[in-house]
Amino acid sequence: CNEILSGRTRDSNVQILGKKLNSRGIKLTEARTIPDIEKNIVETIRSCKGQFNYVFTTGGIGPTHDDITARAIAKAVNRKVERNREAEKIIRSYYQKEDITEARLSMADMPEGVSLIENPVSKAPGFKIENIFVLPGVPTIFEAMFDKLRHHLIGGTPILSKSITSFIPEGRLGDPLAKIQLDHPQTEIGSYPFFKNGKVGSNLV
Amino acid sequence: CNEILSGRTRDSNVQILGKKLNSRGIKLTEARTIPDIEKNIVETIRSCKGQFNYVFTTGGIGPTHDDITARAIAKAVNRKVERNREAEKIIRSYYQKEDITEARLSMADMPEGVSLIENPVSKAPGFKIENIFVLPGVPTIFEAMFDKLRHHLIGGTPILSKSITSFIPEGRLGDPLAKIQLDHPQTEIGSYPFFKNGKVGSNLV
Repeated sequence: CNEILSGRTRDSNVQILGKKLNSRGIKLTEARTIPDIEKNIVETIRSCKGQFNYVFTTGGIGPTHDDITARAIAKAVNRKVERNREAEKIIRSYYQKEDITEARLSMADMPEGVSLIENPVSKAPGFKIENIFVLPGVPTIFEAMFDKLRHHLIGGTPILSKSITSFIPEGRLGDPLAKIQLDHPQTEIGSYPFFKNGKVGSNLV
Repeated sequence: CNEILSGRTRDSNVQILGKKLNSRGIKLTEARTIPDIEKNIVETIRSCKGQFNYVFTTGGIGPTHDDITARAIAKAVNRKVERNREAEKIIRSYYQKEDITEARLSMADMPEGVSLIENPVSKAPGFKIENIFVLPGVPTIFEAMFDKLRHHLIGGTPILSKSITSFIPEGRLGDPLAKIQLDHPQTEIGSYPFFKNGKVGSNLV
């Protein structure tokens, strides 16, 4: 999304998705922020859908001219775009007659053959096609809709983790911590340095 | 970085980088968050270095066992890892003799043939190899070091942008905004919806 790449907005959906997936025992393996350009979306989806079990997209499915995700996804999976009758019905039933604009109805334009994903906040649904879940960018709506698609996901055992914040610099921890990691190959030990108010420290996970 | 993909930490370097590049007239085209696994780093670097003018990496160059970026970058550009004498000297001169641990010195292990990038905060330098800039993950240090590598970048005319926050929902804006965009093809108009305290609105950029 251009808004994140320009630095005007800080992404928060990766954090939401990472946490939600983790709690289902699914590891978020990679996150990509790409511009609102059809070619980039098509290529990224094509490369990711074969490489990962699940692909989640956020953003670009609203009613404005720069919302091109549904069309790009259709191209990436070689399907036509149609006005989804079920989605159209949901959108029409949510608004007063005078508020049903062509822009709003265009949110029902989706690839052929999708399953809809319920939107409990603002109604316009997302969709699933192949292993791709297409969701909106507004974090509160994204989060609410993720909970509606959970039954599509095959999870595993959640990874348990514990974080310890220390004001010991990594340079002091590095050598002994490497030994601990060697002795416990089943445990993934991470060390993440921080620098706050002139003090260095490490979060150990 | 595992810490961001797990959702425990929210990334902020993309925002810093996007803003800094924008002010130099360089567009951030894509951002990827990948796990701390050598294979993933090598493949991502190999794919990105040919595709983009500049590649920036953040994180994974500290003194702990999970800091594998320098080694992975060396592999991606087919170079050996060596202890960089200049970097070693900088690290040695920063610490008291009893604080010079093997972990700290390992931060001088870099691909052969790099140019160092000065670290005005905690001294351990980053490096540039080919079109790849290798920087640390701590946001304050990342930001300070970016300012030290600016002379390596060929910039352009900064993109000017103006954001207007409105409490008009996108469904009402969509149709007239699309017409404005059509009439002004040289201007990139973006609309980013938000949902706050039960009110919907749009940021127009």
